[in-house]
Amino acid sequence: MRDRHVVIRNIERADAATVDQLGSAGTATVHEAIGRRGYLGPELAPIQRDVRVGGSAVTVLSHPGDNLMIHAAVECCRPGDVLVVAVTAPSIHGGFGDLLATSLMARGVRGLVMDAAVRDTMDLREMGFPVWTRHVSCQGAVKNTPGSVNVPVVMGGVAIHPGDIVCGDDDGVVVVPRDEADWALEKTNERLSREAGTRARLEAGELGLDLYGLRDKAVELGIEFLDSADDL
Amino acid sequence: MRDRHVVIRNIERADAATVDQLGSAGTATVHEAIGRRGYLGPELAPIQRDVRVGGSAVTVLSHPGDNLMIHAAVECCRPGDVLVVAVTAPSIHGGFGDLLATSLMARGVRGLVMDAAVRDTMDLREMGFPVWTRHVSCQGAVKNTPGSVNVPVVMGGVAIHPGDIVCGDDDGVVVVPRDEADWALEKTNERLSREAGTRARLEAGELGLDLYGLRDKAVELGIEFLDSADDL
Amino acid sequence: MRDRHVVIRNIERADAATVDQLGSAGTATVHEAIGRRGYLGPELAPIQRDVRVGGSAVTVLSHPGDNLMIHAAVECCRPGDVLVVAVTAPSIHGGFGDLLATSLMARGVRGLVMDAAVRDTMDLREMGFPVWTRHVSCQGAVKNTPGSVNVPVVMGGVAIHPGDIVCGDDDGVVVVPRDEADWALEKTNERLSREAGTRARLEAGELGLDLYGLRDKAVELGIEFLDSADDL
Amino acid sequence: MRDRHVVIRNIERADAATVDQLGSAGTATVHEAIGRRGYLGPELAPIQRDVRVGGSAVTVLSHPGDNLMIHAAVECCRPGDVLVVAVTAPSIHGGFGDLLATSLMARGVRGLVMDAAVRDTMDLREMGFPVWTRHVSCQGAVKNTPGSVNVPVVMGGVAIHPGDIVCGDDDGVVVVPRDEADWALEKTNERLSREAGTRARLEAGELGLDLYGLRDKAVELGIEFLDSADDL
Amino acid sequence: MRDRHVVIRNIERADAATVDQLGSAGTATVHEAIGRRGYLGPELAPIQRDVRVGGSAVTVLSHPGDNLMIHAAVECCRPGDVLVVAVTAPSIHGGFGDLLATSLMARGVRGLVMDAAVRDTMDLREMGFPVWTRHVSCQGAVKNTPGSVNVPVVMGGVAIHPGDIVCGDDDGVVVVPRDEADWALEKTNERLSREAGTRARLEAGELGLDLYGLRDKAVELGIEFLDSADDL
Amino acid sequence: MRDRHVVIRNIERADAATVDQLGSAGTATVHEAIGRRGYLGPELAPIQRDVRVGGSAVTVLSHPGDNLMIHAAVECCRPGDVLVVAVTAPSIHGGFGDLLATSLMARGVRGLVMDAAVRDTMDLREMGFPVWTRHVSCQGAVKNTPGSVNVPVVMGGVAIHPGDIVCGDDDGVVVVPRDEADWALEKTNERLSREAGTRARLEAGELGLDLYGLRDKAVELGIEFLDSADDL
Repeated sequence: MRDRHVVIRNIERADAATVDQLGSAGTATVHEAIGRRGYLGPELAPIQRDVRVGGSAVTVLSHPGDNLMIHAAVECCRPGDVLVVAVTAPSIHGGFGDLLATSLMARGVRGLVMDAAVRDTMDLREMGFPVWTRHVSCQGAVKNTPGSVNVPVVMGGVAIHPGDIVCGDDDGVVVVPRDEADWALEKTNERLSREAGTRARLEAGELGLDLYGLRDKAVELGIEFLDSADDL
Repeated sequence: MRDRHVVIRNIERADAATVDQLGSAGTATVHEAIGRRGYLGPELAPIQRDVRVGGSAVTVLSHPGDNLMIHAAVECCRPGDVLVVAVTAPSIHGGFGDLLATSLMARGVRGLVMDAAVRDTMDLREMGFPVWTRHVSCQGAVKNTPGSVNVPVVMGGVAIHPGDIVCGDDDGVVVVPRDEADWALEKTNERLSREAGTRARLEAGELGLDLYGLRDKAVELGIEFLDSADDL
Repeated sequence: MRDRHVVIRNIERADAATVDQLGSAGTATVHEAIGRRGYLGPELAPIQRDVRVGGSAVTVLSHPGDNLMIHAAVECCRPGDVLVVAVTAPSIHGGFGDLLATSLMARGVRGLVMDAAVRDTMDLREMGFPVWTRHVSCQGAVKNTPGSVNVPVVMGGVAIHPGDIVCGDDDGVVVVPRDEADWALEKTNERLSREAGTRARLEAGELGLDLYGLRDKAVELGIEFLDSADDL
Repeated sequence: MRDRHVVIRNIERADAATVDQLGSAGTATVHEAIGRRGYLGPELAPIQRDVRVGGSAVTVLSHPGDNLMIHAAVECCRPGDVLVVAVTAPSIHGGFGDLLATSLMARGVRGLVMDAAVRDTMDLREMGFPVWTRHVSCQGAVKNTPGSVNVPVVMGGVAIHPGDIVCGDDDGVVVVPRDEADWALEKTNERLSREAGTRARLEAGELGLDLYGLRDKAVELGIEFLDSADDL
Repeated sequence: MRDRHVVIRNIERADAATVDQLGSAGTATVHEAIGRRGYLGPELAPIQRDVRVGGSAVTVLSHPGDNLMIHAAVECCRPGDVLVVAVTAPSIHGGFGDLLATSLMARGVRGLVMDAAVRDTMDLREMGFPVWTRHVSCQGAVKNTPGSVNVPVVMGGVAIHPGDIVCGDDDGVVVVPRDEADWALEKTNERLSREAGTRARLEAGELGLDLYGLRDKAVELGIEFLDSADDL
Repeated sequence: MRDRHVVIRNIERADAATVDQLGSAGTATVHEAIGRRGYLGPELAPIQRDVRVGGSAVTVLSHPGDNLMIHAAVECCRPGDVLVVAVTAPSIHGGFGDLLATSLMARGVRGLVMDAAVRDTMDLREMGFPVWTRHVSCQGAVKNTPGSVNVPVVMGGVAIHPGDIVCGDDDGVVVVPRDEADWALEKTNERLSREAGTRARLEAGELGLDLYGLRDKAVELGIEFLDSADDL
């Protein structure tokens, strides 16, 4: 790669059913299940509410303020994909709006993760095209500087490869490496079952402190349990 | 206190009716009424809309990225409380989600004020558990480092003691010291009455400039009233 | 101006129909149409959704934490105006709430653009008074320090003159200089027509890369189109 | 201007002696003297210490991450100028380094004010070329997108016109409109004289509270002077 | 206190020798010694290097952009004090410069901790008056709004009372409650002795992992020590 | 890797002479030479000036506020290494000070790149141990939560592998992948030669606009060169 600019048209994707199940499990659960990894951070936030999506990453590496490579990426997308746009430096340019969303929806793309900004958010919500983005901004972009499509990128402290599984919901975005998909789903399902049991017990008034065996640990760590501040 | 870690099980609380009335008065009114104090700042924002809450603070002091002490705090909570979680340093860890909310709701807790982050926000809104938080993030927490429950904490530039009154709404969170509760309610009610009268006069077209006697003050301060820019 | 404080009562405004049409075109479109200028940035965000407004700017220059000049500005407003409040230094003071909104609505003002903070946001949304603001905060303001009304201000990197056209929607705020109003509307309408055609073609599956003639440009810029990563 | 890109080769400048004197008076003094205006804010900070500069602004408006227009500006500079580079959106690109500084020094340029970033700071300090910048960053720029030279720009909340006087020191940058130069110098000199007297009295132990007549004002404002906290 | 504005002229201070010794121990050591408390955070940074100071806090609570109360505080200061200026909301106003520093130095004040901004930094460094501040900014302040002197304040997440011990150095500021002074010094001296021994052993090549007994703990925590990545 | 915590004792390193030459070339030059990649951003800033370092990365992945893994990394370091400490979430903990620096210097380590904070900066500068860090802070860390040593990490938007080449100077940090070391040095040397020639010509007054052939490009891009603003 080094100093070349490339558009890779075809990439490997994970099994569609696995992607769907990871998407619907919710980001927090998947993140925990795979060892507290893959979260893109609180600043990559959804512009909509109550949407859960899973998809395969088509990655874009763009120059700030330039959306040429997003246009170049459209034809690389397939149904079930999520477009993941990284920038080589921080940017508040709204290089993505309702026209690009129209184009992506026409190809079955499920959503966008944008490390810069989007605009036309009123339209995007109306169209039902889900977006996770660092900023909402109508600052316009140009189409002058080359970048790449379907190369490894870094976003929100996470290395993302083309074909990785992108899970988005109200808490943000979690990315699962493609070659960990099956293992991740297994771990996620284990966690979901475990949590269902825990939830019932907590609803019944049981304490996490007891349920997780934390009371002894707390004492070992030197925490003192006192009846009132007078006992200090 | 100094270098001890303690969990104080029982605390003094303000009169329940007073807490309720302060909560329903709205944060801006309470903040003004008590001398423009107690506001935790714009960064401790609600994850929901159109919710007004008042409650008694159960305080937690946690190590960043560690929610052990939140678990330890649950059994210290009573109906009508609001859990207030401070951290010893800035953190974006989502150490609070739907399971802890389940546990708190089972004990009648009215909401959470979190100086780090929460996750499972889609669920929290559905459950109707109100939260004010610095970040939304699914980054997971550990349970390894001791802290304290029901000790004085500082959050958003405000010193909070266990049992203080926590008021939250769409504008954020205002905290009233417990021993000022009655005085604060009196001042708040005075303000509410006064504002009702003012609102009616402003609706009728009267000017705040006249109503508050600001026109003379403006002239005294050297402000010149000109008919147009040509008079400059 | 220099070191004087003035309130200019009467200003020139653009043609009302032009203002309305620019407002309803949407900020992204207007911003693009006039040469990617006039956007106040992602931090001046709406507190409501799905509202599009156009109005004539009545400008205020305030000392931080002081809303005296907002009160002084009310009588300078006419139906169709938008109040634009700049501060001489960054501020999180919520110097605007439901009472001032009541006053402005009584005069037919269409909205507020605030470079500091607003409060009573639950009420403001209920009243249907649209606001774009840097912060939501209930921190109270005083009325002690002079400023000016209807003087040129700078906000979000944009110089704004009294009477300029203010367009607000979910993407933020775009300001059009008053003496460019007709030209801006012409350019905006051109863009709206062009985009309608483009949208239809993109929906039909045509690619922006082809439609905008970007494929050749990409190649000229040295971008290599490869079938798969194996061709690297 | 609107949607054109221009390089204006020749501009009006203020009297050289006036510029020099404003520069050497220090930014805080000039800012106060002209009515607390013109300060570009704490984020436009010097990369060096103990340097005071005054110069005439040659302005550049650049696309983020693109330094083409800085190159275009060099031949518009004359001895005594300061290059002022604005960007159309926030940027951390280091589009200015030792080579551009070499070029500007060869033309007698006194310094740079950069709303993005500079690099080669070790060299710039060694060369004695003073810089005020938002960021230090070695992120490289391209030369693909047009902008303008010697048009009005906005930076740090201040509108700057070509030929305005730029004053920089350890506190940052203050800009004086060219047509206020003489008045600004007069006011500045008045302030310098007044401050010299004040300084001597403060050194002798006199209190500002008395010297500025603030004690009575404080009482009028309702401040209570108490001997100790026991008097509360 | 509630909604009163007061200037408390006389406060209790800790023993001068204790204050001096805490100041010279360095902030990191004192912070650790007292249980990892009292640090005002990385944003309250020194404007100078290689200065270590300890002093007794004279506290100021100011309205943003207003330095009236700093003037009111001067006569409350004694030799050995450090002036600690909090604001009721975030501010970048440079309400402190060389004149106020002259006044404070004339009274033997050892330094300033400022939660807003200072200016004239070139002069302040030359005068040898140490400052820790959130911002450097020449934005001017007014003298119109009341506040208090020698009341409890909160800064950088720490509650500070008049007479508390303020320690500043290149790492920032740590505050020790006055009634913990003796205990804090004892703990600090213990730590200093212990660290001296540790330093010698580390210089000799011994590992902290062994010296602190962390190797076993690491294994218990499930950390695997592998010879190379091939063993994964 | 997934959910394991490992310490990898031995890693591959690039040729020592290559590392040294890349380090001494300066970060901006290396960053440009390898295709404008590898820069960790302006927030990873040096605590010292006028230091240029090149070294081989020993990587650490830590829980925020926990420096256990830094201790675990020491014995993995060799002369010529640079320790690179990433965190799983943002942190301002000063988990590195003079004692750890003593330990690393005893093993010939050349510096530290820290994605959280360091303390004892006065000592670190005196010891001559170079550090690039996100924050300076004395907030103390604990040793309770596992992490890894010599695994791939992401910092400042760059994926870093153990053994990669770390270059630091006054502009920040640039990382070169180990398997690109020879190519990177070749490209760097080419650039250094080219720049030497350019510098001489710019010093002689030649313009970059001509030297880089940008004048024609500017015209092609639609930039108009005008003699004065009157020609607009």
